Amino acid sequence: MYRYIKGIVTQINPQHIVVENNGVGYLVLSPVPYQYKIGEETTVVTYLHVREDIFQLYGFKDEETLNLFLKLISVSGIGPKSAMSIVAFDDTNKIIAAIETSDAKYLTKFPGIGMKSAQQIILDLKGKLVNDELDMQLLSDNSKDVAAALEALGYNKKEIAKSLKHVNFDQDLNKALKEALAILLK
Amino acid sequence: MYRYIKGIVTQINPQHIVVENNGVGYLVLSPVPYQYKIGEETTVVTYLHVREDIFQLYGFKDEETLNLFLKLISVSGIGPKSAMSIVAFDDTNKIIAAIETSDAKYLTKFPGIGMKSAQQIILDLKGKLVNDELDMQLLSDNSKDVAAALEALGYNKKEIAKSLKHVNFDQDLNKALKEALAILLK
Amino acid sequence: MYRYIKGIVTQINPQHIVVENNGVGYLVLSPVPYQYKIGEETTVVTYLHVREDIFQLYGFKDEETLNLFLKLISVSGIGPKSAMSIVAFDDTNKIIAAIETSDAKYLTKFPGIGMKSAQQIILDLKGKLVNDELDMQLLSDNSKDVAAALEALGYNKKEIAKSLKHVNFDQDLNKALKEALAILLK
Amino acid sequence: MYRYIKGIVTQINPQHIVVENNGVGYLVLSPVPYQYKIGEETTVVTYLHVREDIFQLYGFKDEETLNLFLKLISVSGIGPKSAMSIVAFDDTNKIIAAIETSDAKYLTKFPGIGMKSAQQIILDLKGKLVNDELDMQLLSDNSKDVAAALEALGYNKKEIAKSLKHVNFDQDLNKALKEALAILLK
Repeated sequence: MYRYIKGIVTQINPQHIVVENNGVGYLVLSPVPYQYKIGEETTVVTYLHVREDIFQLYGFKDEETLNLFLKLISVSGIGPKSAMSIVAFDDTNKIIAAIETSDAKYLTKFPGIGMKSAQQIILDLKGKLVNDELDMQLLSDNSKDVAAALEALGYNKKEIAKSLKHVNFDQDLNKALKEALAILLK
Repeated sequence: MYRYIKGIVTQINPQHIVVENNGVGYLVLSPVPYQYKIGEETTVVTYLHVREDIFQLYGFKDEETLNLFLKLISVSGIGPKSAMSIVAFDDTNKIIAAIETSDAKYLTKFPGIGMKSAQQIILDLKGKLVNDELDMQLLSDNSKDVAAALEALGYNKKEIAKSLKHVNFDQDLNKALKEALAILLK
Repeated sequence: MYRYIKGIVTQINPQHIVVENNGVGYLVLSPVPYQYKIGEETTVVTYLHVREDIFQLYGFKDEETLNLFLKLISVSGIGPKSAMSIVAFDDTNKIIAAIETSDAKYLTKFPGIGMKSAQQIILDLKGKLVNDELDMQLLSDNSKDVAAALEALGYNKKEIAKSLKHVNFDQDLNKALKEALAILLK
Repeated sequence: MYRYIKGIVTQINPQHIVVENNGVGYLVLSPVPYQYKIGEETTVVTYLHVREDIFQLYGFKDEETLNLFLKLISVSGIGPKSAMSIVAFDDTNKIIAAIETSDAKYLTKFPGIGMKSAQQIILDLKGKLVNDELDMQLLSDNSKDVAAALEALGYNKKEIAKSLKHVNFDQDLNKALKEALAILLK
């Protein structure tokens, strides 16, 4: 629900920071809280973790780190705490490289990540971090966006590829998407 | 809890947009995100989807689409994702017509909607989308509002029809409703 | 969590109103929505109803109606919907009188309230609506507040009565409460 | 999620206060509500208690009381209500002294705290309230913060002590933490 919070950093603790927005101090768990300075005006990119007894914001300096975090917690057995310890290392490329090259041993160096979890991360994420489904490089920007939107709506790769062939992409993105939907619903 | 959020569109992704209100970036899942422009000031009509591990806003350009979405997710077996793929087609009338004319085959064209779900949609919603209960056309505007309020409070059609006969509708709506309640509690 | 929302009424529906505060349209279920006018600046007294799949505000014109509503939903078997239909009648005294005089038949006139629920309401609330525990009339205002705070902290009637005897109430309320706590922890 | 709320106290009740921030009246359960004055501008330090049917703010005058409260509710069998009755006594040192000196009898004076709960509090918290893990006094301020951050990320005491030996603490805290992480991931 909350993609980011803009505000002033008013507290820095080993595990979290507090960002004040309109007089409300939001407690945000952060992997590297000391990257902030008290009084700093910042935009914390956030993920809201919701469970029966949890309603907690996790915050990151940028979308790239957030996206890696979201991919990690999508792996079964990897919760926010382990994912935080991985992204805390703050060298996203090195982590992605370890996953892409199946370097499970490297991943076990992070606290809470045993060999089994490391292999599960590789199994679930390999190929998903760098080049997203649908051989994206073959598509123009517009068709990439339309393809992603159709995929988000539940259409599978075959349906998407079939419909994209007949769409005129020299028009506004919204119209292109409508044209693709109309083709799919013929 | 949130019926709409007014703000500036700051992010557009295949599956969601981000609307900034008072420095908070609200992540809103949208069926047709490309209908927005970055920097556009907008009012997103929202539905808050709450489950044990979900606290997520779904957003629409207008109340009509929202209402169709709400009716669709009231059908057993139809979740927000399938409902989004239906309303994404953005031709509410065509969808309502398919339901009113029991055209299950048409509904199965939407991703995630098999024949069984299509028939369940028709079973649950036919007659409920165009002309709401209580033969509304027979009622004047005021009595329509009072009837709907009584129905919302749990009174059945017979009780409502009986009480409406004795209410003077040439008065403020609130007084008319109180009069109807008093009649019902005699 | 939300005791009231100040804002402008922007929507009135048979079952709810929308109150806009700082660009966010809060959907508030209301027993008598037509008591509001579009554009009216108002303070809606609210109760946040939370369940696994519910996060919903119920709103009332004043604390008195809210308190009656809260007492009603504390009765086992009475949910917000039935309580709304009772307080919708908007004559709190008549409802309280019916409970205080064990008039179950009157309560069954409300939709969703059968004889069993009516009797449960009387069983649970009789004597609790008008004169709250601890024979409040015997206490001065200050001691009434201290007694209520001690009760809220979990001290029973006997402990409270015993401690109140030794407290000097010609001092600031906070000091009086501290003195009472100190006596209880001797 | 909410570490504090800044606003005006608009209601004081035996069990809670209402703090208004930007037109929203937040209901905050408070152990000593009479320490506030109506109209007072204040910052309430808060804890958000979340369960399947609860979404409630508990508020305190300062972080010290909040931290004691958080430690108490971390003890199995001690819920927010009992913890509130303990911190209500508002003499944090006396309570900590009772725990540090295993004075279970003193703790049983608080409502809802029997001998078994008192002993559980002592078992879980003794040594944890005054001097946090890792013999903190041996560490300089910077290394204390880095150690606490590493602990928060899941590294154990041995790993932390080993890595701290090789870190140069005459640099910015964030760089020191990165250096420690790099050492741990060698």
